[in-house]
Amino acid sequence: MALTPTRDDKFSFGLWTIGYNGTDPFGGPTRAPLDVVHAVEKLAELGAYGLTFHDDDLFPFGSTDAEREKQIDRLKGALADTGLIVPMVTTNTFSAPVFKDGGVTSNDRQVRRYTIRKILRQLELGVELGAKTFVMWGGREGAEYDSAKNIQAALARYKEAVDFLGDYVLSQGWDIRFAIEPKPNEPRGDILLPTLGHAIAFIDSLEHPELVGLNPEVGHETMAGLNFTSGVAQALYHGKLFHIDLNGQRSIKYDQDLAFGHGDLHNAFALVDLLEHGGANGGPAYDGPRHFDYKPSRTEDESGVWDSARANMETYLLLKERADAFRADPEVQEALEAAKVFELEQNTLNDGETIESIKADRSAWEDFDTDAYLNGKGFGFVRLQQLATEHLLGAR
Amino acid sequence: MALTPTRDDKFSFGLWTIGYNGTDPFGGPTRAPLDVVHAVEKLAELGAYGLTFHDDDLFPFGSTDAEREKQIDRLKGALADTGLIVPMVTTNTFSAPVFKDGGVTSNDRQVRRYTIRKILRQLELGVELGAKTFVMWGGREGAEYDSAKNIQAALARYKEAVDFLGDYVLSQGWDIRFAIEPKPNEPRGDILLPTLGHAIAFIDSLEHPELVGLNPEVGHETMAGLNFTSGVAQALYHGKLFHIDLNGQRSIKYDQDLAFGHGDLHNAFALVDLLEHGGANGGPAYDGPRHFDYKPSRTEDESGVWDSARANMETYLLLKERADAFRADPEVQEALEAAKVFELEQNTLNDGETIESIKADRSAWEDFDTDAYLNGKGFGFVRLQQLATEHLLGAR
Amino acid sequence: MALTPTRDDKFSFGLWTIGYNGTDPFGGPTRAPLDVVHAVEKLAELGAYGLTFHDDDLFPFGSTDAEREKQIDRLKGALADTGLIVPMVTTNTFSAPVFKDGGVTSNDRQVRRYTIRKILRQLELGVELGAKTFVMWGGREGAEYDSAKNIQAALARYKEAVDFLGDYVLSQGWDIRFAIEPKPNEPRGDILLPTLGHAIAFIDSLEHPELVGLNPEVGHETMAGLNFTSGVAQALYHGKLFHIDLNGQRSIKYDQDLAFGHGDLHNAFALVDLLEHGGANGGPAYDGPRHFDYKPSRTEDESGVWDSARANMETYLLLKERADAFRADPEVQEALEAAKVFELEQNTLNDGETIESIKADRSAWEDFDTDAYLNGKGFGFVRLQQLATEHLLGAR
Amino acid sequence: MALTPTRDDKFSFGLWTIGYNGTDPFGGPTRAPLDVVHAVEKLAELGAYGLTFHDDDLFPFGSTDAEREKQIDRLKGALADTGLIVPMVTTNTFSAPVFKDGGVTSNDRQVRRYTIRKILRQLELGVELGAKTFVMWGGREGAEYDSAKNIQAALARYKEAVDFLGDYVLSQGWDIRFAIEPKPNEPRGDILLPTLGHAIAFIDSLEHPELVGLNPEVGHETMAGLNFTSGVAQALYHGKLFHIDLNGQRSIKYDQDLAFGHGDLHNAFALVDLLEHGGANGGPAYDGPRHFDYKPSRTEDESGVWDSARANMETYLLLKERADAFRADPEVQEALEAAKVFELEQNTLNDGETIESIKADRSAWEDFDTDAYLNGKGFGFVRLQQLATEHLLGAR
Repeated sequence: MALTPTRDDKFSFGLWTIGYNGTDPFGGPTRAPLDVVHAVEKLAELGAYGLTFHDDDLFPFGSTDAEREKQIDRLKGALADTGLIVPMVTTNTFSAPVFKDGGVTSNDRQVRRYTIRKILRQLELGVELGAKTFVMWGGREGAEYDSAKNIQAALARYKEAVDFLGDYVLSQGWDIRFAIEPKPNEPRGDILLPTLGHAIAFIDSLEHPELVGLNPEVGHETMAGLNFTSGVAQALYHGKLFHIDLNGQRSIKYDQDLAFGHGDLHNAFALVDLLEHGGANGGPAYDGPRHFDYKPSRTEDESGVWDSARANMETYLLLKERADAFRADPEVQEALEAAKVFELEQNTLNDGETIESIKADRSAWEDFDTDAYLNGKGFGFVRLQQLATEHLLGAR
Repeated sequence: MALTPTRDDKFSFGLWTIGYNGTDPFGGPTRAPLDVVHAVEKLAELGAYGLTFHDDDLFPFGSTDAEREKQIDRLKGALADTGLIVPMVTTNTFSAPVFKDGGVTSNDRQVRRYTIRKILRQLELGVELGAKTFVMWGGREGAEYDSAKNIQAALARYKEAVDFLGDYVLSQGWDIRFAIEPKPNEPRGDILLPTLGHAIAFIDSLEHPELVGLNPEVGHETMAGLNFTSGVAQALYHGKLFHIDLNGQRSIKYDQDLAFGHGDLHNAFALVDLLEHGGANGGPAYDGPRHFDYKPSRTEDESGVWDSARANMETYLLLKERADAFRADPEVQEALEAAKVFELEQNTLNDGETIESIKADRSAWEDFDTDAYLNGKGFGFVRLQQLATEHLLGAR
Repeated sequence: MALTPTRDDKFSFGLWTIGYNGTDPFGGPTRAPLDVVHAVEKLAELGAYGLTFHDDDLFPFGSTDAEREKQIDRLKGALADTGLIVPMVTTNTFSAPVFKDGGVTSNDRQVRRYTIRKILRQLELGVELGAKTFVMWGGREGAEYDSAKNIQAALARYKEAVDFLGDYVLSQGWDIRFAIEPKPNEPRGDILLPTLGHAIAFIDSLEHPELVGLNPEVGHETMAGLNFTSGVAQALYHGKLFHIDLNGQRSIKYDQDLAFGHGDLHNAFALVDLLEHGGANGGPAYDGPRHFDYKPSRTEDESGVWDSARANMETYLLLKERADAFRADPEVQEALEAAKVFELEQNTLNDGETIESIKADRSAWEDFDTDAYLNGKGFGFVRLQQLATEHLLGAR
Repeated sequence: MALTPTRDDKFSFGLWTIGYNGTDPFGGPTRAPLDVVHAVEKLAELGAYGLTFHDDDLFPFGSTDAEREKQIDRLKGALADTGLIVPMVTTNTFSAPVFKDGGVTSNDRQVRRYTIRKILRQLELGVELGAKTFVMWGGREGAEYDSAKNIQAALARYKEAVDFLGDYVLSQGWDIRFAIEPKPNEPRGDILLPTLGHAIAFIDSLEHPELVGLNPEVGHETMAGLNFTSGVAQALYHGKLFHIDLNGQRSIKYDQDLAFGHGDLHNAFALVDLLEHGGANGGPAYDGPRHFDYKPSRTEDESGVWDSARANMETYLLLKERADAFRADPEVQEALEAAKVFELEQNTLNDGETIESIKADRSAWEDFDTDAYLNGKGFGFVRLQQLATEHLLGAR
């Protein structure tokens, strides 16, 4: 059946997602720890192709070298046994007390140096495991109070760290790229690089901007009230969609990390449509992992963990089916045409247009009938949205 | 076909909705005024059963008595010709400059008295036209600045007005009830009775609470980040769902008034399920008008107006089909059972339970195994949500 | 100096506030546990008058009876030594795994019965310690998914529990009242009784509504984008302000629990003004504890805990000074008069007003000059707000 | 007195701000139109130094050339009489029906060409009047529905327009720069370039990025729940703070355009501190106009317009006084030092640091005492915030 995920679908999960034990600000664990070998086996069985992890997910903060090695070996064994891969790794620079004011932008210089060491170690492990993306989520890089953080200095320190890491990757000739994950707030009152826009702006200021892109997350942009799909489209426009975190979020509130599709369903549909059909030729606009960064609800036991893992993938595949049908529907094509959606792909200026030529074009000013747009020249956007709604609901 | 609305579906529209001319804070009209006779004819043709209106929608503020009568007569003629009814009316106490600090709670006593006269006039017209519900949306009752409004005094004035109107209705023996429409903000910085909860609390303080209920609106509760369906369920619990305004809103932002279903689709599905199946016997929990209070997007011309009117009704009917199928699916029933959703309908206390008896019940404390809830006794909520998602997407 | 708190100021703190160890969704503790005796001594030293606590704050979930008694005795000793009192207690029905779907409204009936037992035990302890208020924060009463919770049934179970507890209090003749604390979301996707309005509406449906009021919290209403001071004013209007939780929150996001005054400063000023001067005679509108329910930032060590405890109280006292000066300023009085703020206290209707008399009053309709409100009859609200701003900034 | 604005303070106002007639989505004008000559005279009298305007503010959309010239002449006369300048102009590409789907990114190519003509005309007028900044607020560039707008194409069209305008400015050698004003939503459901981050990212993709910067607005970033001051700091970091719009906004809701300081007062204080003291040497970080883009509340008549204009300037000056005192306070300096705020200005890496050298630094890893951060090494941020609060309240 079409909804059974296969490895070609490139679905991956963070070890911290299926391994989430249920701790939240008002309660402790509701589930026991999940062993990494079991996690890999289950994901393989469900049809995923990849596992991702923070260092501390695999070997707890403060592990000895021996403990660390043992866990790495166990992971490698499970990967070998199942064929799963590790497409991405990332470093936990936010959980331990030492990171209470952040990692690479902590006010405390010694913490910043320690953070770089911790990142280097995980970067090297990622390369060893064949990861192609190294995610940086700076969840503690921020502040609650305006005078507590010199933002300009913090950005300079952030740049210093990323430039240093980038130099290293280049010097080693490694095939791995960095992906910054923006978030507006939580756990800090305000986080540095709060949206994907801020992150791209920052990336453009780096020494090696080509090495650094984004790992945008559905919920994080939604927490700022922003349209995630529009943001991803801008990231694609700038060539910065290096990785993606799929999940669900209902409105502006704490970070919910629901399963993909359990949040804003219209936008999830538009997102899958963009990823699968938004390329120049109508083909995929993004061919990297479809990475789920979600939390199985705290109300669930282990069966709920796997039910929710499956839900993420099935909903993605269902939305892909819906998007395929939407694109193939002649009435939709006609409505897109009527709404002049394709006309936006045409240049506004004529070939070789000059200030003189546009000023000389009476149809652009003197003879242009602005009155025709009052009570006429409707765009038909609502009809288009209703067609999308009907496709989404499987009613066409 | 099932998706063709009929009058039995009780779909109604505000004259100001299909008549919205496109004015917003940053632009003027994009559509010409809509004549009421044309509106009635089109709604009848599309399958609606009712038209609702503010006084100023039908006869502009400042109309002479003759102009007003003429418009009322034209409306009556159209109703007679088409069979449409007027299930609800309401008064505009927010547009004219005189209402700049509100109507029944304006700091200016003369304005308050004028407002009551304006409401009385429209109330009498509503009764004459057979309306069963009189909506009060106090959009200007509020403030931008905390010291500008004595909230306790404002609530007392609000009560004074509603009590006075209620006495009148009772004294006349009219078959009409009041429905207060809450909204958190816009056009005022903060509006009095910002959510349906605040409004029910206020209603309970009135002289004739049985005469007064709610007209909750999807978008208004959503603007406060609240779950609309949960709110409607609480209104039903208190017997206060007198009328309902259906539309769409995407997240916490300005009042969008999108078509129903073009906002939070999961919640729209849950809402239709609640309205159609949430009664004690599994039947409808609400049998009043399904009233659309939306705005055809400003980008549209008149054809977009009717497309959007149709979209509201079709989406409602589609969601009703989906909810029927959801309820009828044995796997859903099993999942609801597993999630103990039905168990919540059982009393917590035994019949005749006393403090002594519950204290004597060792199974409730001494012998209760709280440890079983760690890593066990999962509720299966995610599986249930995924079943709902699949039904919503028409995939089951 | 005026800013030194004294016991007459009635400042109280939750043991969980100063005892917050820094755990959040993305990190573990940054501070060691705080012993209750030390906490009481420090609060006494700083000028507070009361300590409040959940059962689990004093004796961890799962404590034996002996452990529990020992901790209660230690608390009693510290209270006796310092003169501090326990004005309020509350039960933790949200942290342990057993509460993962809530307490009194869990879908699981055995959990509901267990919850009632847990509450009874803490209620009895509260009475023993002389507490006058028993707070109920139902943080886990809610859902992430619409079909997972029958809201109407949940409200019925909530009522069943509160009615049962109320009967017990009445039967014992205890001098303690219940205060429900609303919150819109976090840790559940949507929490039952999300705002103070919803809670008052619910209370009105109880068997003994006079026994039950509110414990509204600054941050919780702010998380729904609502004006906290306006909400408190409505609670006062309905006689339901039984207790209050003071803290700070910056905009709509996760629950920040900042120190009081470190969030919306304008609204904090208006709140203190309301509490201290909003009574009928210009005196206090509320004479209960000024309870701080905040979290010392995770970045702080113990010295930051006490600095932040002090900050809450000092800011309250500072704002009280500012509010006193605001009220006493003749220019403010004149501006309030000009803005007709006092005129709102006048009845809208004349004594003995009838429908006939208001209809006969030509000044209320026929002769009322609505045009005068266009380009005239300004309310002067901005000037008033600027006077408030200048007082708040200590500039007058 | 210090609070009397002078021209050296560089306060400017939009003609549309003091000229706002009170129209909003739920009501028409409450004030008569404001004549430009009167506006200039009053602003000069109040101490402002500049007036800014959209073309349509000065000569209504559809004016003949003669009408346009007459209004320009009247403005020039008033400027000459008062000494006021026009530091910035901007084009209205959002109010007329022709812009219903945007200007430079309308799906309709003819509209896009017309828009460029309209912008060119206003750009030339701006240059003629000596404006140094040309603001582009693309309020209609966006969509309500995801399939209605190809975001990547829209960005390409936006770039095409800005590049074309930039070429023109360069070719003419004009001393004027472009400033893009981001906004997340309203009047469109989602607006292109929703935050200042997205706008900088876009600017970096232009042909002449050095010609284009930002005009961030307090309220617009606040509508996305973002910290405005942090955003401005990032803009400064990237050299993109070309102009600024000061106003007030209370939380995430419709665009309020309150007076500066009537929104988030803590953040306003931090903003003034940043602008006035955030430069490398402790001096101003920004020396352009302090431009107020606010709306006098609809409740006000003309006296309220000027009261509110005055309020903007006075609050700015008051906050500047507070920020000066904050910076000068030795206890604040000591607290900043203790919080290691200055330490963030030090490079993380040693001079000439290499991967090898940092790996060889045992103090950065092997010997680094992470445990010291548990229950120790607090940052003292709350104390710092309380010092800021006390300075803000004028209490130190």
